[in-house]
Amino acid sequence: MVAGTSRADSALPVVITTGEPAGIGPELTLMLAAGGGLPPNTVAIGDPEMLRQRAIALGLVVTVVECSVGECPSGDNALPVWSVALNAPSSPGVLNPANADYVLATLAMAVDACQHGLAAAMVTAPLHKGVIIDGGHPGFTGHTEWLRDACGVDDVVMMLATDAALHAASPSWQGSGDLRVALVTTHLPLRNVADAITFERVTCISRLLAIGLQHQFGIAKPRIAVCGLNPHAGENGHLGHEELDIIIPALDALRAEGMDILGPLPADTLFTPRHLAGVDAVLAMYHDQGLAVLKYAGFGQAANITLGLPLVRTSVDHGTALDLAGKGVADPGSLKVAIALARRLSTQRLSATV
Amino acid sequence: MVAGTSRADSALPVVITTGEPAGIGPELTLMLAAGGGLPPNTVAIGDPEMLRQRAIALGLVVTVVECSVGECPSGDNALPVWSVALNAPSSPGVLNPANADYVLATLAMAVDACQHGLAAAMVTAPLHKGVIIDGGHPGFTGHTEWLRDACGVDDVVMMLATDAALHAASPSWQGSGDLRVALVTTHLPLRNVADAITFERVTCISRLLAIGLQHQFGIAKPRIAVCGLNPHAGENGHLGHEELDIIIPALDALRAEGMDILGPLPADTLFTPRHLAGVDAVLAMYHDQGLAVLKYAGFGQAANITLGLPLVRTSVDHGTALDLAGKGVADPGSLKVAIALARRLSTQRLSATV
Repeated sequence: MVAGTSRADSALPVVITTGEPAGIGPELTLMLAAGGGLPPNTVAIGDPEMLRQRAIALGLVVTVVECSVGECPSGDNALPVWSVALNAPSSPGVLNPANADYVLATLAMAVDACQHGLAAAMVTAPLHKGVIIDGGHPGFTGHTEWLRDACGVDDVVMMLATDAALHAASPSWQGSGDLRVALVTTHLPLRNVADAITFERVTCISRLLAIGLQHQFGIAKPRIAVCGLNPHAGENGHLGHEELDIIIPALDALRAEGMDILGPLPADTLFTPRHLAGVDAVLAMYHDQGLAVLKYAGFGQAANITLGLPLVRTSVDHGTALDLAGKGVADPGSLKVAIALARRLSTQRLSATV
Repeated sequence: MVAGTSRADSALPVVITTGEPAGIGPELTLMLAAGGGLPPNTVAIGDPEMLRQRAIALGLVVTVVECSVGECPSGDNALPVWSVALNAPSSPGVLNPANADYVLATLAMAVDACQHGLAAAMVTAPLHKGVIIDGGHPGFTGHTEWLRDACGVDDVVMMLATDAALHAASPSWQGSGDLRVALVTTHLPLRNVADAITFERVTCISRLLAIGLQHQFGIAKPRIAVCGLNPHAGENGHLGHEELDIIIPALDALRAEGMDILGPLPADTLFTPRHLAGVDAVLAMYHDQGLAVLKYAGFGQAANITLGLPLVRTSVDHGTALDLAGKGVADPGSLKVAIALARRLSTQRLSATV
């Protein structure tokens, strides 16, 4: 049984995994609970005692309410928590590899709840890849890939959306900071990107993106604009051959399947009004090609969505910010956007489920 | 003698090289002349007969006035032209390698005029790299590199600025679309970028950028924010080693020289208000990392500036747009921005010349 198969799911809680305990995830969650910014029927997963101590240290008036998985009691300034115990004490800003398994256990609990009809969607606060690797998981490359494996699917798509894109009346670009950007490759060193761009990957990710826009965003026939890999999209082979050899044939194959595809276009041409008009999502070939402009457009606040999973997962668009942790100065804006998006997508998914 | 050594230079014309004759450069220049958008004391370089025919074909009321190099007569709807003859007839949208030498001759005339005190600055309309290469110049990689060699300097910096950045009251970022982005590497296939990032190149380009901001933009102590090469600026070596091995040591060396340097920062973090505040220019490691966001911020209209030359050169931010050429529908906005910037920089340069 997966989320989205029953009308009753709309009453299920959205769960937040509070992420790396030394980072800003716990306090962002507490700040929303204290400030009235936590929507009803939202629950956190983490160590309740750590969360209580963090609230006290920051002077945040929050009642941390430990409850069973599936429950989500309400109350003024309440933060309902499904409990996972820390492996070792945690101080803000100080990473401890001993807590790597704690972080992964919070994710496993959230996936399990979504897959067993106990949660509508999951929202992930940031974790720290390095400390998960150091904590005994050398192959760990990030939330997105971990969730892919945990859910037993072959490929997923990382997409970011600005807050404006979440609230836009129309799904396609309207020219006011609303933008959705998905990535063909995600967390790779730049020197490995070109070899990772294959016909199979471009076509697979494009199809998953289109299906995700249809099923999760309710866009019947999504229009996708695709960036080239090289500057000026290779300029007819003068600035690189991947467009001619791989990307153009891949996009032609997708068009032959009936998909509405624009490109490949130079990235610095695509992100302009002339080309964005009517586009539902941009597909960038790699991380910084797409996300620098997305974060600029979102004024630093956007949400991350994983398409292709058998559950709804959104995420903040920032890292653990260890330098800010424990100071109460971090901005919970992206977490708020990610929670609202998770709720919206889980509701839309109900009506789109076939 | 170079431009900028005499007060009389402020009365010198700004010259536009009209670029690839099959592209939109000639008609953009004519559109400005016909619409009253060509500032006084601006002259074009190109084939006068081709320009006349193009004006007639587009129904543009322009008097093409052929004049000697150094002259710039005024008149209603006049386009003063310094003549270079085409090598072969040219039709909009149809590239002809026979005209490669024509395009380069227009550039040579502009450089010569700037260097001999006959022009205040040069503005380049787009050329087509491929046809220059096919026309007998296999090593040609672009305007910027050609000008570097023609002026006999070792390194130059390609910087783009949005129109808002040109008109901003303060030189540093104010949060309203004003942005300046310079590049460590320019027109390289993406797979060659990582190897081109060296200690020498990062330090050299950073120094040239700082000097350019001081001398051409009048910013006494520029604050430069620098992107990492890899996603998340390498995340402490987990996503690439160039930050640890090259970029951080290079930036430390620059700080030791007294430069005001921020970074390396992840590109998708840097282009947000928190980090852009007070920054005079962003230094990106490669083309699409910096220019996608710059063009988005500039709403598709920006100007390109080459820093490090012994003359002022600006350029449009777009290509030849062969699909639009001859239709009169291309937007002369970037050319207008580039002309205004060239005039402003040539004036500021006078006062900054030491």
